[in-house]
Amino acid sequence: MTEGAAFDVQERDAVYRAIATRRDVRRGFLDKPLPDDLIHRLLSAAHSAPSVGLMQPSRFILVRDHGIRRAVHAAFLQANEQAMATYTGERREQYARLKLEGILEAPQNLCVVSDLESERGHQLGRHTMPETAIYSTVCAIQNLWLAARAEGVGVGWVSILDPPRLAEILQIPANILPVAYLCLGYVNRFGTQPELERYGWESRVPLDRVISYDTYSDERKAGHVEAAKA
Amino acid sequence: MTEGAAFDVQERDAVYRAIATRRDVRRGFLDKPLPDDLIHRLLSAAHSAPSVGLMQPSRFILVRDHGIRRAVHAAFLQANEQAMATYTGERREQYARLKLEGILEAPQNLCVVSDLESERGHQLGRHTMPETAIYSTVCAIQNLWLAARAEGVGVGWVSILDPPRLAEILQIPANILPVAYLCLGYVNRFGTQPELERYGWESRVPLDRVISYDTYSDERKAGHVEAAKA
Repeated sequence: MTEGAAFDVQERDAVYRAIATRRDVRRGFLDKPLPDDLIHRLLSAAHSAPSVGLMQPSRFILVRDHGIRRAVHAAFLQANEQAMATYTGERREQYARLKLEGILEAPQNLCVVSDLESERGHQLGRHTMPETAIYSTVCAIQNLWLAARAEGVGVGWVSILDPPRLAEILQIPANILPVAYLCLGYVNRFGTQPELERYGWESRVPLDRVISYDTYSDERKAGHVEAAKA
Repeated sequence: MTEGAAFDVQERDAVYRAIATRRDVRRGFLDKPLPDDLIHRLLSAAHSAPSVGLMQPSRFILVRDHGIRRAVHAAFLQANEQAMATYTGERREQYARLKLEGILEAPQNLCVVSDLESERGHQLGRHTMPETAIYSTVCAIQNLWLAARAEGVGVGWVSILDPPRLAEILQIPANILPVAYLCLGYVNRFGTQPELERYGWESRVPLDRVISYDTYSDERKAGHVEAAKA
């Protein structure tokens, strides 16, 4: 079968299962290092993401050093305290109970950054929407996240970090944008629902509420696509 | 098999194949409408993407109307002329030969936008990195792109559009951010390499050039991960 060929039903279903059962994982990481060949597969998946003008701005910092991870964790604790202070009452208690990162428990951390000044791609597609350079890096992260799901590896994205502080710890220069700090490790299983739904922080919105036809609408429209599901 | 369970090798390989053979498609769309149930599956895949705080900011505008698509195409032509004017000499001739969109040929267009002011998620994870709300929408787009590959559907992302003009055409309000304009349609096969590489605009960078360890480095380091490939 050539690589550009069609997927059979089993292959197609596998892709959908990875998408549907991917979770943001913050707990339950196994104390087992990720093999180098697995990490290579994950980064290859990330690196083959679409990028505007074939710019490929993403750079990957594999973090295992305990001293560095402790510094990142301390930065998380500080940012999280500031975030928590913005809530009051029951919402604040709920926030305090959430587990929002696995920086020290996960055997592998990964910081994904974007070189937005790269000359690669010769600016193609970036005149009208320069932000697509950053978007390219986010596509790479989502590729990695899905590949990890298929490998039995949980991934958690920690956004409760002050980017300048993170840049300082990881010696990221000023012209390079920190996009994501990820915690990775094997897990025994993936949750059937998102953690934030399971613990009552937020619930998922039905699909039909986010679809409109030909022009934008925030009204619910019982359109033909949603009807087709029934 | 429960949904949180492990993937077997065939399933894992299918996920990697979708990632490796996904392409930005601008030509070769078949003149065959996408069935509603297929569109529903693609949007479900997008909608199940990770989102900061389970915010789910993404909104999907399914565009089929020919008048609207002609207006978007005219906006592309204008933006593309301005972009082309920034190049000179051989690079300009090369740019002029590239096919960069399939707005009118693809039977389905899709604009993906982000409601960044949504109260959903209660700001969790957005105090230090508010940009993760937009990133959530990009993750949704990449999910859709991979699901489409598995369905035999080509997707092209058109970034050569002026966002305010696009918002005007699709009646997107000022508080909603246009993130991507996509062209979708069945294709007979997917190219073995990215179009921009095939047509000599840019070539892909080797993976080992974008990896560093524990701290950022733009030096090539022959690290253990790349070595593990051999």
